[in-house]
Parts: sequence; structure tokens; C-alpha cells
Amino acid sequence: MAEKIIDPWGSALVEDYEKIVKDFGLEVFDSKLLPDPNKIMRRSVVFAARDLKQIANAIKNKKKFYVLSGIMPTGERIHFGNKMVVENIRYFQEHGAETYILVADLEAAAARGVSLEESRKRALDFHIPAFIALGLDPKKTFFYFQSENIKVTHLASETSKKVTANEFKSVYGSLEPGRIYSAFTQVGDILYPQLKERMPGIIPVGIDQDPHIRLTRDIVRRTKQKYNFFAPSSIYHKYTPSLDGGLKMSKSKPESCIELPEDPKQVSKKLMRAKTGGRDTVEEQKKLGGEPEKCMIFELYKQHLIEDDKELDKIYKDCKAGKLLCGEDKKHACELMAKFMKKLTKDIESARKKVNKLKFVK
Amino acid sequence: MAEKIIDPWGSALVEDYEKIVKDFGLEVFDSKLLPDPNKIMRRSVVFAARDLKQIANAIKNKKKFYVLSGIMPTGERIHFGNKMVVENIRYFQEHGAETYILVADLEAAAARGVSLEESRKRALDFHIPAFIALGLDPKKTFFYFQSENIKVTHLASETSKKVTANEFKSVYGSLEPGRIYSAFTQVGDILYPQLKERMPGIIPVGIDQDPHIRLTRDIVRRTKQKYNFFAPSSIYHKYTPSLDGGLKMSKSKPESCIELPEDPKQVSKKLMRAKTGGRDTVEEQKKLGGEPEKCMIFELYKQHLIEDDKELDKIYKDCKAGKLLCGEDKKHACELMAKFMKKLTKDIESARKKVNKLKFVK
Repeated sequence: MAEKIIDPWGSALVEDYEKIVKDFGLEVFDSKLLPDPNKIMRRSVVFAARDLKQIANAIKNKKKFYVLSGIMPTGERIHFGNKMVVENIRYFQEHGAETYILVADLEAAAARGVSLEESRKRALDFHIPAFIALGLDPKKTFFYFQSENIKVTHLASETSKKVTANEFKSVYGSLEPGRIYSAFTQVGDILYPQLKERMPGIIPVGIDQDPHIRLTRDIVRRTKQKYNFFAPSSIYHKYTPSLDGGLKMSKSKPESCIELPEDPKQVSKKLMRAKTGGRDTVEEQKKLGGEPEKCMIFELYKQHLIEDDKELDKIYKDCKAGKLLCGEDKKHACELMAKFMKKLTKDIESARKKVNKLKFVK
Repeated sequence: MAEKIIDPWGSALVEDYEKIVKDFGLEVFDSKLLPDPNKIMRRSVVFAARDLKQIANAIKNKKKFYVLSGIMPTGERIHFGNKMVVENIRYFQEHGAETYILVADLEAAAARGVSLEESRKRALDFHIPAFIALGLDPKKTFFYFQSENIKVTHLASETSKKVTANEFKSVYGSLEPGRIYSAFTQVGDILYPQLKERMPGIIPVGIDQDPHIRLTRDIVRRTKQKYNFFAPSSIYHKYTPSLDGGLKMSKSKPESCIELPEDPKQVSKKLMRAKTGGRDTVEEQKKLGGEPEKCMIFELYKQHLIEDDKELDKIYKDCKAGKLLCGEDKKHACELMAKFMKKLTKDIESARKKVNKLKFVK
């Protein structure tokens, strides 16, 4: 339920995410650990972490560390989750991280039947440009295709022997061979940058990716004698909720899901029907004020559309005070979204021209 | 028990191997399908097969087919099982097969902790020369290292999604992640030659390797639409029994196990203590004749030391008639074994010089 998962501006964690933190043994994310946290860090959209201190220390002491993430080159568009990952990658990149972006073409082939050639084409044509458009600095980034990185395979093969069936099942809840094969490939990806030089690394992910982090951290302990890798750190962002108030946008409900990029007119229609924290009548709302904590539009501001905290705060207060009504506010959101989508489309176009200069590693 | 597993010269399958054929759903190997069968084929040491007809047809109609096997570059020596595999590879090589030998260095690293560099060194220094010394024609063979063959990884990753946990368990009896990872790498190896051109292939193996063949054959059916691979054919050789009469030589009983190459004097000592089919007393043996069916020395003749069927037959008959006694026979075996070991050592030495001319593929 939306009431549970959308935390008020600046407030503590709400129930669902609190439960995740507890069940998964995560740390509550503390933005004060990091210098100049980005907006999703400051606003508790990034809500949990593992071993964040070793990254904070690396930043503070100007020690080497890395940030790594993957691109799944299926589909013609990306989603808000990818946008948050890039925002976090960018943050660490700007704070000195060696940056790795892998294209999960093996995974795309195995899970979705997309050929390696097709994945390569899509990644170069859209996904990598989209990441650059969202803020990734390509000059400071090493890219690779899983299908070309034999060292990832070496790590996957070797580390698969370090985990029993029961242990794997307790992390993933499944022993399907395809799942197992993919999981160890991801372990290989996460540790690959340390083959050249061991250093802390941070993996910004959605909470559904935590099993890979847990598995990798277990494996690091078990290969200590040979590799002495740093266990990967991680941070977790909340989902962007579905416009109807559900936990997570999903393509299966296209009317409540916004993809990137998407036609601004089409998005406006969806926004105008979004669930808000408005009262039953205008009169009531003027009297009692709105409930931004329950509002999908406010959540989009907070996660994606408004950079400036003061601007966000003003909206929050005006809504609470009954001064800002939903109709007007939705119009505002449509304008911001249209601006964002237009800029994104244009930036993807420009980024495409940089693709031939990317640094690929193996 | 030795009585069960050693079939009399030329006889039908004995109980243990019959059970394997039945339980695994194998064909009984029929040497008449193949032109000029080699000695272990003629003598029912090769006892079972899958889909041998498609290979027989390829030979008959001079169609393309391949033979593939792997080298596990652990240890300083090989064993009689490897020798039988090479004998069969050589047979198919001489009958037109495109030949692939892979070095299972990923497997060696994962299962035994041997570094890739060490595996490479061992393979080039000993294992490949030993295969050449035993009859492999290096000029007609494509070699590769698992760790360098990304296409094998692609197949492994993709095919891992085609099998459920339950199905895997029913074939391997285990869902250990390391086992799963290795199994799909082997599926990748077995199918790799068909990526270039689809054609039948034969994998000569010991019976313990059959799960890989079964898994690969299942996967071939499930990837028909995309790849339309031929299901791999296979042939299975019996174990070389332990000199004390056990099912299989094992390094854990060094006094009953002969490795290749091994010092002739040391081997002679072991042979002199081998279990034979001799009677309790010389008088009795002269009267009743020996029992070559129960004799480890005779099994070594049959599997390894005597090429000529007439020569083998004479020994069989002389033993049965009580004319050939165990002491004399063991001396003969020691001579043949010494000759074999000396030649092998010399041939490995010469083969080492050919290693720089091998054809490696990726």
C-alpha cells in the first residue's frame, strides 16, 4: 500500500522498508556519512546500505575505490530505477570512483533470447547513450560486454565451487540451474575490477538485487586466502511507485508506469490520473491541507523532477497548508516532466555521438 | 567384484555393465556397425553407446562429423582410462572425424585450485604430448583452452536456462552450484564444434561421464528451433580394473594402480602381485586350466598390451588348457608393460617438440 511505502519528506523509514532493512540485515542509509550527498541520498530515497563506511573512508582519504553497475540491453526504453542507479553512479564517479559499466548480454541472451549481436546494437544505440544522458561520464568509465569478458567467466566458474546448494537456496530461494549460472556470472562481474587491483567497491542497486551482493560477500570471505578481495559495499534505493499508488511501476500496468524516454503528451495523460494526497473536495483541501506523503506526484518530484530542496520544501508546505491544489500541481508536474523528457531525448541523441569513443575493457 | 565385471574374451556383457546399459538407457555397443573396429571395440571393452548409427552413417557416407574429448590438466600422469579415450579418438580421427581436444583448465581451477597458468604449462608440457604419444594426430586436431573459449561460455550460459532444478537433480543427483556450473560448461564444450557447422559428433567417455551426455542431448532437443544441433553420440569403455580385482584402478590404492607413464620396475612389482585366475596349486592349474576371465593380467592384455587378436586368443586358450601358468604369464606381462612404458616415455619426449605447431581455436 502506498501509505506504507512513501515516507514523508525527510522522515524516518516507513514500515515496509524498515522490514526489508531488518530482514536482510542491512544498515539504514545515513547520508551524513557521505560528502555532498545527491538528492535521492538526502531525501532517504536511498534507504539502506551494506558496508558504506569503507566507501566513505575511501572518499575521505582519497583512496581508490570503484563503482559498478550493469545494463540489461533488453527493451527499447529504461525506467526510473535505472535513472536512480545512474544518479548514484554519477555521485561516486564525481567523488573519485573508478567506474565500470557492464552490458549483461549473456544474461539477455539466456533470459530473454536476445542475440549477442542484437544486445550489442541496442546497448550502443540506446542504453549506453541513455546512461550518459542521465549523467554518466563516459570519459571516466570502463565498459565491457559480459560475453567478451573471459575473466568474469573465470571468477564465476571458480566461485561457484565455494557455495553449497543449501546456501544458495537460502539466499535465492531457488536452485534453478539458469538462476545459479546467472548469479555466479554476476559475482564475477562484481569482483572483476579487483582482479587488476584490490580495492573497495560500491554497487548501487534496487533491493531486488541484494541476493547477488550477499552471495558475493560470502564468496569474498571464502576466497580470502587466494584473492583477499574487499567485500563489495552497496546502497539500495526505493522503488518509484506506480502512479496508482502501488509499490512499484510495472509495464504490466502501462497507465501507471512511465518509461524513459516517453512521449510527454502521453505521460501528461497518465500524470493527470495519478493518485494524489488530495481531499475529497476542494473546500476540504483548502481547510485541511493535502497529504503529500500519499501523493504520487510529490514522490516523482522528490525522486526525479526537483533538484532543489527548497523548491521541494515549498511545495510540501504549500500542499500541507491547502494553498497548492492537486489540479494546479499536476499541471506543474506535467511541465517538469515534459521538460525532463525533451531534454533526455535530446541528450540521448548527443550521447550517441560519443559511443565510438568509449573505453572498452576485457 | 572382479568376477562380475571382467567379461570373458569375446563374451557377452556381464552383469554389472548390463545393469548400467539398462539403467542408463544405453545401446549395447555393436562393433559391427563400424568399419575396422579397434581392439577395444572388437573386444567389448567398449560396451555401450548412444546414437552410434548416426556416426556409422557419417563414416559410411563420408559426411562430416566430429570427435571431442577433454584433458584435465591436474596431476603429473594420466591413467589407462585416458589411454582408451585416445585410442577411440584416434579411431574416429582415422575415419574422417574433425577432432577437438579441450583443456579443462577452468574445471581444474575450480575443482582443484590449479591456476590457469599452471594448467596451461602442464597441458603443453605433459598432457597433450601424452595424448599425441598415445596416438592422437596433432596435425588433424583442433585444441582449445576452456578459459580462452568465450563461445563455450555463451553456450553454457544460454543452455543453463533450459533445464529445471528437478531435471538437473534427476541426472546428476545433486544441485551443488559448482556441479551445475561445470556441467553447463561441459555442455558448451560438447556442442561448441557445431557452432561453426552443425554435424554429428561422438564423445568417447567412461561411464561416469554419461550425465553430461544426457544433459547435452536434452538441451539439444530444447534448443532445436534456434540451433538445430545434432544430439551428441557417445561410446563408453569399461574401467581398467584394479590389480587386486576391484572395479576400477584408484590412486588411493597405489599398489593396485598403474599410472602412465610409470617406472617399469615399479610396475613389475605390482604386476607380480596382481590377482589372476590361477588355481590354488600348480598341479590343479595344469589339470583344470586357469580362469582368464578372472585374471587382471589377462584384462591388461585385452585392454592395453596386446594388439593382435590371435596372440590374445592363444594366451586365452593356453591358460584355459593349463599350459600357461601364472608365473610365466606375469613375466610376459612385465616384459610387455616395460616395453610399453619405455616407448610411451620416449614418444612423449618426441611429442613435446610438436607442441609449438598445434592448432589452437577459440
